[in-house]
Amino acid sequence: MTTEDKKGEKNGLSRRDLFSNTGKAAVAAGVVAATGGAGILATAAASKSAKASEDFAKATVEPGQLDDYYGIWSSGQAGEVRIIGVPSMRELMRIPVFNRCSATGWGQTNESRKIMRESMLPETKKFLADRGEVFLNGDAHHPHMSFTDGTYDGRYIFVNDKANTRVARIRCDVMKVDKMIEIPNAADIHGLRPQKYPRTGYVFCNGEHRVPIPNDGSVLDDPTKYHAVFTALDGDTMTVAWQVIVDGNLDNVDADYQGKYAVSSCYNSEEGVNLAQMTSSEQDWVVVFDLARIEAGIEAGDYKTIKGVKVLDGRKGSKYTRYIPVSNSPHGVNSSPDGKYVMVNGKLSPTVTVIEYARLADLFNDKIKPRDAVVAEPQLGLGPLHTAFDGRGNAYTTLFLDSQSCMWNIDKAIAAYKGEKVDPIIQKIDVQYQPGHNHTSMGETKEADGKWLVSLNKFSKDRFINVGPLKPENDQLIDISGKEMKIVHDGATFAEPHDCIIVKRSIVNPVRTWSRGDPYWAEAAAQAKKDGVDLEEAEHVIRDGDKVRVYMHSAAPMFSLEKFTVKEGDEVTITVTNIDDIDDLTHGFTMSNYGIAFEIAAQATASVTFVADRPGVHWFYCQWFCHALHMEMRGRMLVEPKA
Amino acid sequence: MTTEDKKGEKNGLSRRDLFSNTGKAAVAAGVVAATGGAGILATAAASKSAKASEDFAKATVEPGQLDDYYGIWSSGQAGEVRIIGVPSMRELMRIPVFNRCSATGWGQTNESRKIMRESMLPETKKFLADRGEVFLNGDAHHPHMSFTDGTYDGRYIFVNDKANTRVARIRCDVMKVDKMIEIPNAADIHGLRPQKYPRTGYVFCNGEHRVPIPNDGSVLDDPTKYHAVFTALDGDTMTVAWQVIVDGNLDNVDADYQGKYAVSSCYNSEEGVNLAQMTSSEQDWVVVFDLARIEAGIEAGDYKTIKGVKVLDGRKGSKYTRYIPVSNSPHGVNSSPDGKYVMVNGKLSPTVTVIEYARLADLFNDKIKPRDAVVAEPQLGLGPLHTAFDGRGNAYTTLFLDSQSCMWNIDKAIAAYKGEKVDPIIQKIDVQYQPGHNHTSMGETKEADGKWLVSLNKFSKDRFINVGPLKPENDQLIDISGKEMKIVHDGATFAEPHDCIIVKRSIVNPVRTWSRGDPYWAEAAAQAKKDGVDLEEAEHVIRDGDKVRVYMHSAAPMFSLEKFTVKEGDEVTITVTNIDDIDDLTHGFTMSNYGIAFEIAAQATASVTFVADRPGVHWFYCQWFCHALHMEMRGRMLVEPKA
Repeated sequence: MTTEDKKGEKNGLSRRDLFSNTGKAAVAAGVVAATGGAGILATAAASKSAKASEDFAKATVEPGQLDDYYGIWSSGQAGEVRIIGVPSMRELMRIPVFNRCSATGWGQTNESRKIMRESMLPETKKFLADRGEVFLNGDAHHPHMSFTDGTYDGRYIFVNDKANTRVARIRCDVMKVDKMIEIPNAADIHGLRPQKYPRTGYVFCNGEHRVPIPNDGSVLDDPTKYHAVFTALDGDTMTVAWQVIVDGNLDNVDADYQGKYAVSSCYNSEEGVNLAQMTSSEQDWVVVFDLARIEAGIEAGDYKTIKGVKVLDGRKGSKYTRYIPVSNSPHGVNSSPDGKYVMVNGKLSPTVTVIEYARLADLFNDKIKPRDAVVAEPQLGLGPLHTAFDGRGNAYTTLFLDSQSCMWNIDKAIAAYKGEKVDPIIQKIDVQYQPGHNHTSMGETKEADGKWLVSLNKFSKDRFINVGPLKPENDQLIDISGKEMKIVHDGATFAEPHDCIIVKRSIVNPVRTWSRGDPYWAEAAAQAKKDGVDLEEAEHVIRDGDKVRVYMHSAAPMFSLEKFTVKEGDEVTITVTNIDDIDDLTHGFTMSNYGIAFEIAAQATASVTFVADRPGVHWFYCQWFCHALHMEMRGRMLVEPKA
Repeated sequence: MTTEDKKGEKNGLSRRDLFSNTGKAAVAAGVVAATGGAGILATAAASKSAKASEDFAKATVEPGQLDDYYGIWSSGQAGEVRIIGVPSMRELMRIPVFNRCSATGWGQTNESRKIMRESMLPETKKFLADRGEVFLNGDAHHPHMSFTDGTYDGRYIFVNDKANTRVARIRCDVMKVDKMIEIPNAADIHGLRPQKYPRTGYVFCNGEHRVPIPNDGSVLDDPTKYHAVFTALDGDTMTVAWQVIVDGNLDNVDADYQGKYAVSSCYNSEEGVNLAQMTSSEQDWVVVFDLARIEAGIEAGDYKTIKGVKVLDGRKGSKYTRYIPVSNSPHGVNSSPDGKYVMVNGKLSPTVTVIEYARLADLFNDKIKPRDAVVAEPQLGLGPLHTAFDGRGNAYTTLFLDSQSCMWNIDKAIAAYKGEKVDPIIQKIDVQYQPGHNHTSMGETKEADGKWLVSLNKFSKDRFINVGPLKPENDQLIDISGKEMKIVHDGATFAEPHDCIIVKRSIVNPVRTWSRGDPYWAEAAAQAKKDGVDLEEAEHVIRDGDKVRVYMHSAAPMFSLEKFTVKEGDEVTITVTNIDDIDDLTHGFTMSNYGIAFEIAAQATASVTFVADRPGVHWFYCQWFCHALHMEMRGRMLVEPKA
């Protein structure tokens, strides 16, 4: 992009003028931009050159060397969370969360199904009773780590499921989900962020879609009776602390660094139910939640209990909230690492609205008007969606329609808003293509270190060899350690790494093997105890009516049982304990032709229950390569047919 | 590794002497090696250096540049196939095959479930009737492309499911599975390779585990009545052409370049059912199948029809097969690209047995003895599992126990076997750690080009930042374009990329958008025609008793229906056609809080059927980011409650 172009953008309200405030025109503009923007017309060069330049070499992690950061990536519709090494951009692990995982047995093992089942509201349990009992899909959007004193503390990762209104928690010591909750009263959790100070604490969750409360069919096509609900989850107990009903519907959210506020964007203040209605207003708003006032309100009993949850009324005029007008359809909400500001990204407006946290007390005390909390509103380009920070006073905003990343200076934007003749924009670079979220290393903490920026681009088009109609996304790694941004790596990823965080290596300290006392398999351990079985020595088949409990342990290359016999129709529970205590020595258990398979990492116990209604000889085997005699690590389930 | 070490290995039969021919001792040796081998004791260096060396730069594909090869990776227990760019080692796409995919809806859409359902044997249909109807897991081992005249032809990829005895076929034009088959009479398909000449043609499939035929419970704990079955699938029709019952159980397989033979390894000629029995003999064998004799046998009616399949008896003494003794527990079987030899990898023996294809005619005509077909048997090191080729006369063998890759010269190995004092071993390098399969670029075709070697290592241990008890595998990229091997990249991968092929870019030519006439959604199209609905114009809700068919089309950022109403308990079929025809403009359809989600790529139609037994207002939305107004791309399903 030339300097002329950049200038043209900044002053180029003519491009913005293409947008009218009617939905129809906005749609038309959006289609053109999303499908034929300048960025997309660029074509990728042919083959790789023999030598990588020094720039690109910065992202190269040589064989045997380690990445500097844990990237925690959500996966959108894939329903999982991914650990990506940064800067190598290698996928180091998939953590199944809302999905069914063929490899680990997530969604099939008793341990995972218990977590999923316990997350469910009673009506969901009823609904799912005859269809496999658990949801096997999810739409995982926003993965965020727990905080203590304004920075990551390495305890947990929280992530939302927009598809089925859930939030899950991942234990960072073992990198497995340990809790999940379906949020009552809300529909389709979108924005999620943890409380930053003093600690997490609360996990703030935006119910995106407005629905009747209760949503039992008594109200159907009457949108005036729909509501959106903001939820504060208790991150320690994974229960709902309180909820607030708001006007409009909720999009993204962030917390401040003082433990006082949460701020949510609202893209449909019109409360419409179709596109034209949703985009008909000139303005929408952000909703600010005053945590102390809300806690006092709860204390004072100013709530209704709905489905067991304390729900406050935070609609316009409430003392618990303030509504700050911004241009139509804002999207990302991002607090700056100095704790001073929160950025609201314009989406349909070319602006980012900068709100000063210090002014919110006056706003809540009605000493200033809502727009008085705004200290800057730089025009950056078309389609600003999310903003990240380098800890040096600069911000990086994704421009979806322009397919660019825009680097700008916060102080200069504030000065310009005051009327000074300064240009906050430092640099714009093309990204390939159509960026959504972005994130900087440690950038949502007070320890933002300004090393790396990732731009999560929704389209890859010609950036990779063609893999058919369904293409990967393109997560680009950008070096921001210098004065300007430099793209150093194109990272192909499967649908759809919605958002990410980048955490310095020293903060995350997973264990290498499980501890035998881990509560993960508490239920299996309790049953074993009742059955008089020592899991680490197990080689037992216990019949209990038509229930059969099979206990075995695994040590490469053998299961402790070479065979067991059950009757057709028996309910069989198989519990396997991996007694190998070597780093990385995972075993698996597959019951062939029964659709049963799961992982047992070193020192873990895992179990599964199924009905043995297929007679005959069925081999079980270890499907996790463990030993030179791995293929010989197998045994037989003999199922006696019904007479 | 020093020169001394290398020499020590080559002449070091003392290490081999650690192995006795009893299973117990072999097990003990295996445990030590797999868990405490020299390679594993190495520790990874700390952080990355600022500059990648020139070697490592060879694997760097700069932003915007394209990979040279399509890597087609299986995924083991993850049940999918992956497209990996080589040399960048980036995962470009996941193709769901035997698994449930939360993103694409594979395992949930009517189109995918039809493919899975139609693959099933009648007894499997019955077995699965009350548990979701389809298997949602798999153990995908060996992905291989269809051949024409000894090289890849870009039509199909075939891959086996060891867990549930299936083979699937992927259409390379759209990179989706179009057919699947459950193999009758066999148990747990392991080895799979396509016929190389004149074309595929046959896909050879090894039934690994011995079971009774039929396996209906009439025979249980009587292993003398178990059988292993070799299957030739017709790759064009995805039906079984014929099967051969063999002695022993089957492991890996390869085809020749003349269209005459298939060769399978057998690791349990003892036909044991526990580890001690399986490893009790000094020797096992490879089974050679004479395709012309088998076809003549079928023609002559020399078969039994079992479960609709023509099954020949190929046990010892049969004219259809020959059994060539090799050391205990051979594993990988690999034909050299010059078409002359097939390598049988020793696993428990430090040797690779080289069999000359030209001698097999004499063997079948009883002019020579089985071992006379062997022309070399170099001792390479501990745990040889698989061999790959560079097309320059060299072979590359993975040594599982030694954690090494061994480069050796085929002609020299033959000369040494004849008694010449030559050393076939060119170089050994440590890999990290415990390699299973390996593969060279185009290496299983006559066009082997000697550019890249991938070593698929089963353990990664300390090679990546720690991600908890479950670690990634480590797929290492090795430059073989020079005179020696150089490791240039460590590629972390999720469990467990079992095997791979590396195909030059020009051979694979996927389409960019679907063709509207594609048979993929033929059933939905036929129903739409009956309903008088034009799928590309669809905005219809058709009630048919308690069945409701909802047709809509999608064009960013709108579905053609903003709402539809059904009654609690209705069976609802939703059919969505993506009329956008822009490259990469995929839409998705999620019915929130119903566990429903699927992908609709550009110009595709996809459908799903479910029971609407949850009353209330339920938002459906596009979960594939498509437009600036993507979040507004949504509508409502109104479910009227039962009275």
